[in-house]
Amino acid sequence: MARALDEFLEPGNLGVIVNVGDDDVIYGVHVAADLDTVLYTMAGTVGEHGWGLAGDTFAVLDQLERLGIDTTFRLGDADLANCLYRTNEMSRGATLADVTDRLAGALGIEARIMPVSNDPVRTKVQVAGGQWLDFQEYFVRRGHRDKVADLRFEGAEGAAPAPGVIDTIEAADVVVIAPSNPPLSVWPILAIPGVREAIHYHEDVVAVSPLFGGIALKGPAVEIMRGLGLPEGNEGVLSAYGSLLNYLVVDTADAADVATLAERGPTVVAMDTLLSGPDGGAQVARAVLDVAI
Amino acid sequence: MARALDEFLEPGNLGVIVNVGDDDVIYGVHVAADLDTVLYTMAGTVGEHGWGLAGDTFAVLDQLERLGIDTTFRLGDADLANCLYRTNEMSRGATLADVTDRLAGALGIEARIMPVSNDPVRTKVQVAGGQWLDFQEYFVRRGHRDKVADLRFEGAEGAAPAPGVIDTIEAADVVVIAPSNPPLSVWPILAIPGVREAIHYHEDVVAVSPLFGGIALKGPAVEIMRGLGLPEGNEGVLSAYGSLLNYLVVDTADAADVATLAERGPTVVAMDTLLSGPDGGAQVARAVLDVAI
Repeated sequence: MARALDEFLEPGNLGVIVNVGDDDVIYGVHVAADLDTVLYTMAGTVGEHGWGLAGDTFAVLDQLERLGIDTTFRLGDADLANCLYRTNEMSRGATLADVTDRLAGALGIEARIMPVSNDPVRTKVQVAGGQWLDFQEYFVRRGHRDKVADLRFEGAEGAAPAPGVIDTIEAADVVVIAPSNPPLSVWPILAIPGVREAIHYHEDVVAVSPLFGGIALKGPAVEIMRGLGLPEGNEGVLSAYGSLLNYLVVDTADAADVATLAERGPTVVAMDTLLSGPDGGAQVARAVLDVAI
Repeated sequence: MARALDEFLEPGNLGVIVNVGDDDVIYGVHVAADLDTVLYTMAGTVGEHGWGLAGDTFAVLDQLERLGIDTTFRLGDADLANCLYRTNEMSRGATLADVTDRLAGALGIEARIMPVSNDPVRTKVQVAGGQWLDFQEYFVRRGHRDKVADLRFEGAEGAAPAPGVIDTIEAADVVVIAPSNPPLSVWPILAIPGVREAIHYHEDVVAVSPLFGGIALKGPAVEIMRGLGLPEGNEGVLSAYGSLLNYLVVDTADAADVATLAERGPTVVAMDTLLSGPDGGAQVARAVLDVAI
């Protein structure tokens, strides 16, 4: 969605606020999974599976595997170099936002990509049986196959929004909540003190549903919303965002639900929300912005 | 020399005590330059220039370079993976010796390779003008071109020998001081409390001179000995080791000096000391051991 908005907007008009709850120290380096996926996607260098760098090699992981290390979490050499750079710079006092700016600069990205917070926030996932797992343990190592009973965002309560985050929300013509996993990827953003409020008071907040005919194209959004007791389909998406939304965009495959959803408050619009078109999703971005402006 | 001794000796009869003064944190990982060079050499996987792993790739460094990092210190991907593994294991409480054992095991090495100490010891090099440099700054980044005025081994006084080091020396039939740079690579071993004494009291200590016709085949041994005010040639090697030696082996190219050197105490023998023969130096190893036994 960020790339689609970037395709459509004039340079300098996009700020992207990114979840840091998926960050973790893996192989001793600070992996910022969502930030890097956004950076690589914006730069057009993301790998074919939607993570990592296209064409990256795995020489470091191959060697770690020979040493008996679990290498289920695939981190390519150049990707690992970026994480190592982040780790080293942060150990010398740089913030996560500083490093993100530098990585964005090195990748030639003009949009401003911001971690929602420079403070450590870690998403923890409670699975069946009550056990709490680190996010990447749940998501990558166990392949998000566990039933999710609860989520918490460790550190969020005491975290501060990164510089520019609240200003960016307040100054935005439109706040777009991307078609990501609402509890898993958006809640940890909303959990940072001040962020939910800034979005709440904004008059043009549009969320794009991650569902297509009631199911997510990838990832465990449906299973997690179900596990957390949210309603099925876009009712669940609406519930996940509470009273934040002025507009909800759903896919044409869910057009039949528009009237029912609209009863709950926001303006609901159905359109083609598939972002993988030849124009990089620019038409979807334009249509989403048109909804709110 | 270690590989040559290993070629000649029965398995299990070789212990190698290695300098850790060249260790440093580079790119955020614990590089143990001498340990890894010994490990890779013993495993037959050392790179053609005598460091790193043969055939290693440099994808991580290439990316760090794109991020503006000085990548003069060449650390290949698999080499970096080993250093990352070391860093991570040590951050979880493993000792440098533990990690060395595991790397040696992964490389299929039967000889026991030991860091002289598990405690941090850092060689510092004073260059012309009085400035003190970290070892790797002097050696790699500045290409050991500076005139060396003094050396110190930070942390050595308070360091303890790693488990097995003193026992290995005391139980050895022969202690061989390898043809390395005496002040730069052997002094930091001797600086660990207890090591010099254990060698001093051993009756069969043989040093192999690193000189061939008065010059070193590689590295700044001659320049450093001169900078420190030691005599020229093998006189300087003898002076560097003080009263530790019972035997000194010099190359046939320095056979003319044998009588003069012998006046200073040790038995001095000239022989072909070139270790790069087709037998991996086994004949040199046999001849060196024959001197002392």
